Amino acid sequence: MAIKWHFSINLEGKIYFKETVMEKTVVIGCGLIGQSWAVIFAQSGLDVVMYDPSSEAIEKVIVSIEKKISDLVEFDLISREDAPKILERVKVERRLEDALKDASYIQECGPEQLDLKQKITQSIDSIADRGVPIGSSTSGISASKYSANISGRDRCLVVHPINPPHLIPAVEIVPSAWTDEAIVKKVVKLMEKCNRETILLSKEIDGFIVNRLQGALLEEAFRLIGSRVVSAGDLDKAISHGLGMRWSFMGPMKTIHLNAPGGVSQYVERYGEMYRKFGIGGYESVNWKDVAEEMLNDELCEQVPIKGISEAQNQRDRKLMALLRHKKSNVV
Amino acid sequence: MAIKWHFSINLEGKIYFKETVMEKTVVIGCGLIGQSWAVIFAQSGLDVVMYDPSSEAIEKVIVSIEKKISDLVEFDLISREDAPKILERVKVERRLEDALKDASYIQECGPEQLDLKQKITQSIDSIADRGVPIGSSTSGISASKYSANISGRDRCLVVHPINPPHLIPAVEIVPSAWTDEAIVKKVVKLMEKCNRETILLSKEIDGFIVNRLQGALLEEAFRLIGSRVVSAGDLDKAISHGLGMRWSFMGPMKTIHLNAPGGVSQYVERYGEMYRKFGIGGYESVNWKDVAEEMLNDELCEQVPIKGISEAQNQRDRKLMALLRHKKSNVV
Repeated sequence: MAIKWHFSINLEGKIYFKETVMEKTVVIGCGLIGQSWAVIFAQSGLDVVMYDPSSEAIEKVIVSIEKKISDLVEFDLISREDAPKILERVKVERRLEDALKDASYIQECGPEQLDLKQKITQSIDSIADRGVPIGSSTSGISASKYSANISGRDRCLVVHPINPPHLIPAVEIVPSAWTDEAIVKKVVKLMEKCNRETILLSKEIDGFIVNRLQGALLEEAFRLIGSRVVSAGDLDKAISHGLGMRWSFMGPMKTIHLNAPGGVSQYVERYGEMYRKFGIGGYESVNWKDVAEEMLNDELCEQVPIKGISEAQNQRDRKLMALLRHKKSNVV
Repeated sequence: MAIKWHFSINLEGKIYFKETVMEKTVVIGCGLIGQSWAVIFAQSGLDVVMYDPSSEAIEKVIVSIEKKISDLVEFDLISREDAPKILERVKVERRLEDALKDASYIQECGPEQLDLKQKITQSIDSIADRGVPIGSSTSGISASKYSANISGRDRCLVVHPINPPHLIPAVEIVPSAWTDEAIVKKVVKLMEKCNRETILLSKEIDGFIVNRLQGALLEEAFRLIGSRVVSAGDLDKAISHGLGMRWSFMGPMKTIHLNAPGGVSQYVERYGEMYRKFGIGGYESVNWKDVAEEMLNDELCEQVPIKGISEAQNQRDRKLMALLRHKKSNVV
């Protein structure tokens, strides 16, 4: 981590010196996910160094990133003026040692293979300064699996983006049982600085949150299509012209909290039995009422108190109308 | 159904007579769902007559509909010029007999109680002209349950909107075993005319499609929150800043079809085992591979052939960027 000194002039016209921490992020792996991470970091004002064992991948990566940045400019997500500055922040290195020098954060985007992930993380750990977090983009291999025998395993954790990462803000942060809490906090802070929406897991679970939720919905979808109740095209409409519209700006828990005048507890009271009767159980049964009373009610009422539900419904409907207008005018 | 004669001048300057079918829709029940249906029908150029056994509800309904229309004007979903014409198409009647006279379609929006639904549908059936479809907005009571003993049961079916109906285009159409196929076709055509996105079920199933998919996702969500793996707020982000963004314009099946270069069959080959291991099974196991090969592959490849997947991915990403810009600028 390089520290630079700048001088600035404050509101009263006085000159003062300011310490600026120049964070250097390192992306290991120049594939699609690595390219997206580079855009995310550079867009947030951070320096990025990229490395890949394949020199072919290294040679192509800057052109690919330039294309992503110019697409973002086209959609007003990056200003035309900022684009060249953002691209300039991304460098490549041909030796892992050079790439990792002075790193303040490392995002590993290697192949989804346990033995390779172990090997790559081991190499990174043996070179990078102590205390620098090593986040893995893996969607399927928990940190406890690949980092168990690594001496710096306390700085290893999963930092899983959703594809394509530079267009989907959600990021899952999954520490192992031995990940240092200070490391977790550092990573959450960095991700928030990069305008990521962080989903912090308290413990490892296969598929994390995003893929488990997707898997649950897909399982039911395969069942409905498989039993010829509905076509794939019509099922898709149930989401893209139905549930997905609300879900594009409001998660499923806040959605049900607003779907009863008395909030989530009342929702479960009214509809819990209906859902239970669908028989969509799983590996272990869960009592919605208990969860609503013990956890959901407090958290959601803090977000939206019962007396604010009616106004929140109005806001939701205004967002729906804005989305409808957007979809109508979106001739992409 | 009233038939009117108009004369028009065609492109060659000749005057000709044209038969115009003036469809009269009837909405039974003046609550929120009924109001929304009235907006949908009137917005599509159809006459609407509303009825409610409560005279208080009848008195208030036009003001409520006017408010909905003016909200739609604010969001450019109805032009300022069209608004008064749309409102004019909505009338109320204080006698069921008067409301149902010359109806070409009836949308029943009564309470969610089996005995009441039976009674209301029976009354409608005894008055309305033969062959006029009677759709119910029910989210939970299948047509076979409330229409079994009704003489015109062949014209009864569920036409279930998503709340709020005038803002969410998806509509589930659920015939019972004895619903006439011609009636189903008529209703699908009418709904398409009203810019609804129709989800046609081949047979009745509890919760239809939308609530089953929502239920499957909620079941897993309650489990994850209940076991304290994640907070409700963070889980919500996994959808509202993650999966829900894609799903607001592309359903889950097309989504996975585009998530492997070889389409849905390859997706299931690559990730099916991972999902299976989550153990999110349900009331009966389903073999994703069989469903993909027997049904999904053909239908989805007709939508997007394998050689078109890369271009479809680009289109998806452009839609994501447009949505990101929309979310950024949406200060509702």
